[in-house]
Amino acid sequence: METRELLRRVAKGDRRALAKAITVLEDGSDGASKLLAAVRPPGRVFVLGVTGPPGTGKSTLVDRLIGVYRVKGLRVGVIAVDPTSPITGGALLGDRIRMTDHAGDDGVYIRSMASRGWSGGLSRTTSQVIQLMDTAGFDVVLIETVGIGQSDMEVVGVSHAVIVLLMPGMGDDIQMSKAGLMEIGDVYVVNKGDLEGADQMVVSLLSLVRTLRSRSPSVVKVSALTGDGLDRLDEAIEGMRASFSQGDREIRLRSIRGMMVEMAKGDLVEGFLRRTGPRVEELAKQVLAGKLTVAQAARRLED
Amino acid sequence: METRELLRRVAKGDRRALAKAITVLEDGSDGASKLLAAVRPPGRVFVLGVTGPPGTGKSTLVDRLIGVYRVKGLRVGVIAVDPTSPITGGALLGDRIRMTDHAGDDGVYIRSMASRGWSGGLSRTTSQVIQLMDTAGFDVVLIETVGIGQSDMEVVGVSHAVIVLLMPGMGDDIQMSKAGLMEIGDVYVVNKGDLEGADQMVVSLLSLVRTLRSRSPSVVKVSALTGDGLDRLDEAIEGMRASFSQGDREIRLRSIRGMMVEMAKGDLVEGFLRRTGPRVEELAKQVLAGKLTVAQAARRLED
Repeated sequence: METRELLRRVAKGDRRALAKAITVLEDGSDGASKLLAAVRPPGRVFVLGVTGPPGTGKSTLVDRLIGVYRVKGLRVGVIAVDPTSPITGGALLGDRIRMTDHAGDDGVYIRSMASRGWSGGLSRTTSQVIQLMDTAGFDVVLIETVGIGQSDMEVVGVSHAVIVLLMPGMGDDIQMSKAGLMEIGDVYVVNKGDLEGADQMVVSLLSLVRTLRSRSPSVVKVSALTGDGLDRLDEAIEGMRASFSQGDREIRLRSIRGMMVEMAKGDLVEGFLRRTGPRVEELAKQVLAGKLTVAQAARRLED
Repeated sequence: METRELLRRVAKGDRRALAKAITVLEDGSDGASKLLAAVRPPGRVFVLGVTGPPGTGKSTLVDRLIGVYRVKGLRVGVIAVDPTSPITGGALLGDRIRMTDHAGDDGVYIRSMASRGWSGGLSRTTSQVIQLMDTAGFDVVLIETVGIGQSDMEVVGVSHAVIVLLMPGMGDDIQMSKAGLMEIGDVYVVNKGDLEGADQMVVSLLSLVRTLRSRSPSVVKVSALTGDGLDRLDEAIEGMRASFSQGDREIRLRSIRGMMVEMAKGDLVEGFLRRTGPRVEELAKQVLAGKLTVAQAARRLED
């Protein structure tokens, strides 16, 4: 199908066309460049990142949020970074089960993405898919990341708002601060709120939040399983979504900056690997022969 | 301390000097470049990557392998990629507990590395630390990765041999092949060998292995907890370590290529971020104003 025709169908809400367009982006071929060139600047879609350590219940919370937005009549896209995919194809954690929950709902589109095998990195493709979902008329895109590693931080960087999901028994204040936790969240959610230590954790987070100067994130206790506290979480997010809808420049610029940098970086690395491929072998042989250190060889590769 | 003096102490086996030198590399400052310039081409150290999904028992296996090599009188360095560090600082999975097991042993050096906050990426720093551990006279470096994401694959690329750790109940052949599992391992280890399905998994893996043309990885069943089957695993690795020691070019080139590319790529990305920083804001504003698409802005950033 021609790029323009494909995009026209995406914009009309054709799910098959959207699926096909995402596959084109994943392939990273010429088609991807053409597709992106034809996509408009980002507009209506609100991007909400959900991150946190494994086992905190991100999938369940995302499921709940889908429900919350569907009740409001909003169309929801989900980009789920598949935590175990490099090794098992995602089967281990059984994340795909939830995909079926919204299978019959035309207002929900869920796409699972494996963090392995993406030539230019996961964050580049995520940025591209967000733009595509914007074109397809979605109101909200939820990005669920596994909360491990640099690429998650990059994915979070393209969001308009970030939820950090925690649960009782995860460590004390100092660890949370040290791990950079307090730098990224707009809303801190303590899940499994019925467990021992949940209230203490909320208190700790609230006192940590008070020490921040540049912004004041919310702290909310929920139970994603029972739905308890979900209304307060919704309220916290709605504040940010309202600012976004009213054209808050800083919120919009933040996501644009993130997408721009991740796309450029992805292109850069891909180009580098293509360009230098043939010279790697020759330089490696010189290192093996003791003529160059690895650092010297790396520098020559960069030239 | 002057770089040359620091390296001299590292080469003499001074642990404090090694710790300090690694910190210098982590900082990525001018000191890091000087340090790397003075390090010799890689020589004696055998790099063994251990990867696999969360929960398969990597830490326990690494602990066992340390024991195996210590009995042989070999000095062992460990680079443990900290799975939960971006959010909790590594406390969640309690990985650090094992650090104390070898605390009194001068022949073992364990360094935990957080995947977050490394300017040029985890894989670049890992490559650098391997060279430093080589200089410090270690015989074996074990790299333990969390088995999730692209950066793990990159870390695996700097190894002379790779162990993929699996356990019963992780999915079928097709999933394993699809996930690229069969591309990376030199030894496939089925851990928790006493669980139901372990023997079946070994059979499946063996039949998968037979379909590979370019190489023939081993398949071993163990129980890292009891130590069962560890002798067979050791045997499988010793074959590769012997080839390495005898100067097998292909095994040596593989690690050199990996380190070279990761270091160059890290430098490239870091340079890009530094260089483009000031222009990001201006271009993002043009996207916000609808004058450019994100793809166009990204392309201008690359120029």
